[in-house]
Amino acid sequence: RYFHLCKLPGRVTGIRLLRFTSVVIIVLLLVAGALTALLPNIKDDKMPNLRREPKTQSQSVLDSFTLIMQTYNRTDLLLKLLNHYQAIPHLHKVIVVWNNIGEKIPEEMWNSLGPHPVPVVFKVQTVNRMRNRLQNFPELETKAVLMMDDDTLVSAHDLAFAFSVWQQFPEHIVGFVPRKHISTPSGVYSYGSFELQNPGFGNGDHYSMVLIGAAFFHSGYLEDFQRQPEAVYTLIDETQNCDDIAMNFLVSKHTGKPSGVFVKPVDIRNLEKDTNSGYSGMWHRAEHLLQRSYCVNKLVNIYNGMPLKYSNIMISQFGFPNYANHKNKM
Amino acid sequence: RYFHLCKLPGRVTGIRLLRFTSVVIIVLLLVAGALTALLPNIKDDKMPNLRREPKTQSQSVLDSFTLIMQTYNRTDLLLKLLNHYQAIPHLHKVIVVWNNIGEKIPEEMWNSLGPHPVPVVFKVQTVNRMRNRLQNFPELETKAVLMMDDDTLVSAHDLAFAFSVWQQFPEHIVGFVPRKHISTPSGVYSYGSFELQNPGFGNGDHYSMVLIGAAFFHSGYLEDFQRQPEAVYTLIDETQNCDDIAMNFLVSKHTGKPSGVFVKPVDIRNLEKDTNSGYSGMWHRAEHLLQRSYCVNKLVNIYNGMPLKYSNIMISQFGFPNYANHKNKM
Repeated sequence: RYFHLCKLPGRVTGIRLLRFTSVVIIVLLLVAGALTALLPNIKDDKMPNLRREPKTQSQSVLDSFTLIMQTYNRTDLLLKLLNHYQAIPHLHKVIVVWNNIGEKIPEEMWNSLGPHPVPVVFKVQTVNRMRNRLQNFPELETKAVLMMDDDTLVSAHDLAFAFSVWQQFPEHIVGFVPRKHISTPSGVYSYGSFELQNPGFGNGDHYSMVLIGAAFFHSGYLEDFQRQPEAVYTLIDETQNCDDIAMNFLVSKHTGKPSGVFVKPVDIRNLEKDTNSGYSGMWHRAEHLLQRSYCVNKLVNIYNGMPLKYSNIMISQFGFPNYANHKNKM
Repeated sequence: RYFHLCKLPGRVTGIRLLRFTSVVIIVLLLVAGALTALLPNIKDDKMPNLRREPKTQSQSVLDSFTLIMQTYNRTDLLLKLLNHYQAIPHLHKVIVVWNNIGEKIPEEMWNSLGPHPVPVVFKVQTVNRMRNRLQNFPELETKAVLMMDDDTLVSAHDLAFAFSVWQQFPEHIVGFVPRKHISTPSGVYSYGSFELQNPGFGNGDHYSMVLIGAAFFHSGYLEDFQRQPEAVYTLIDETQNCDDIAMNFLVSKHTGKPSGVFVKPVDIRNLEKDTNSGYSGMWHRAEHLLQRSYCVNKLVNIYNGMPLKYSNIMISQFGFPNYANHKNKM
């Protein structure tokens, strides 16, 4: 029909022009549409959807982790750290274990400063217990847990790498702080920080625990923790300490292997000096290390044996931060 | 009877004295024997049995490895290295693959300088082939193989540690020299040495191969190598190169994981400048790296796909050589 326009009578020249213009416009739109379809796709993960409504969790629970951070008397540090951790790659959700008994959670303030990259859940506690963070939280959807102390800052690079390492060693505690126990001829064990205690055996040093205050581990271990002998809970509650030692016992008992895999952090910082609260953390108590040796021996009694095993594997990221960090004289 | 000596007539005093002396001597010997039995046992592995006859292999084939070292035109380096490697802990046996066609093995000299800590077998070859070292030698008894180039010196500490790492990753090639392949938009692959080629993805760098010229791997892979497509052997023979790339293809195809685990060596040296032969090794040929890129693409054809996978795990020994090599600002 379009090709017969020229045969219409003169009094419809206006209509003719209109039709012609319409055709041109339609053709141009079709061409534009075709060109747009041919444009390369911009991937979602390169372009944050800043202007869209907050979506429901789009990260697969298999390829992401939940941060569990317990907090007591250091809300300023908590909030500083939340600003950092809320944006770590592969983070699914944050669970804040609120040990400030009777104190209101900063929910209003948190919401007023939204939107936030991931959901943050404040779990109000009724008693200030160290082991509150080891509950099997119903909000926990991922296989992986990242547990951090509320005064510890680990770089995003370190966390992204350590998470990838955990994915290769999912039955281990993969983290940044190694410790060890020492056997003595009397059969009494001692808890080791490296500058304090030796001997090792053979070359170099060994570790037999990785502390959970800066580590990834499988959420299944939180389930397992609910099924431990009552004496374990009593010990942790008595000392307000040693929950991490207990977890290492649990894990190595379960696997028959060293509980932890140590990833050497590039950038890890303790922020406790930065707090306004003046509160400086349990490990400053005079009896802290002696308590931990005490816990090792108590746990050996409770579990009828010493399940911890030694490792000397130290993992770093190939070619990071220094591109040539693997070079040698070859 | 002894207690009636005094009742014998005088003419047998001499006999009496003799008997008495004999008794004293026997008692002394018995006491000495009892004392010797009570001495603490000296473990075999702390005190080399220098004066005994060479024993048959006392090391368990499960807890030791066989060194396979191929040699061509660098007998001076070979002998220097054998003096070092023959005494590495957990070594079971050495197999020297003698690529010096028509030349006598230095067996007489070797034997005249015995005894040696472990048996060393010289395997005379009929053709000078790179892949001679990848035969399934009948003398190979251990699960683990350590393969070394005849110009590479790795410290005993590094080898002991890497062997312990291999025992935790027995299906991988655990070694000291990482390399990678690069994908390009054209689909043609390129072989990477790190100073030559990028891009990586994300943070840091990655490797997809660990070269077998300084590595531990499972002896089962030598068996597997005998069952590869003929085209693989042709490729290696053509180029006199790429046997190590082929092994990495084989391993990652078998496991579905990265073929290698990189252990960062503390002390690894290339001795090729030290040889009197003037022969400086295949990798100095102008076409060496291009050949290896060529091999990667050929192997992808032969195996119908690219099985190599990337890793960025770098393993070091905790607390060695620097006791505080894991310390940080925490």
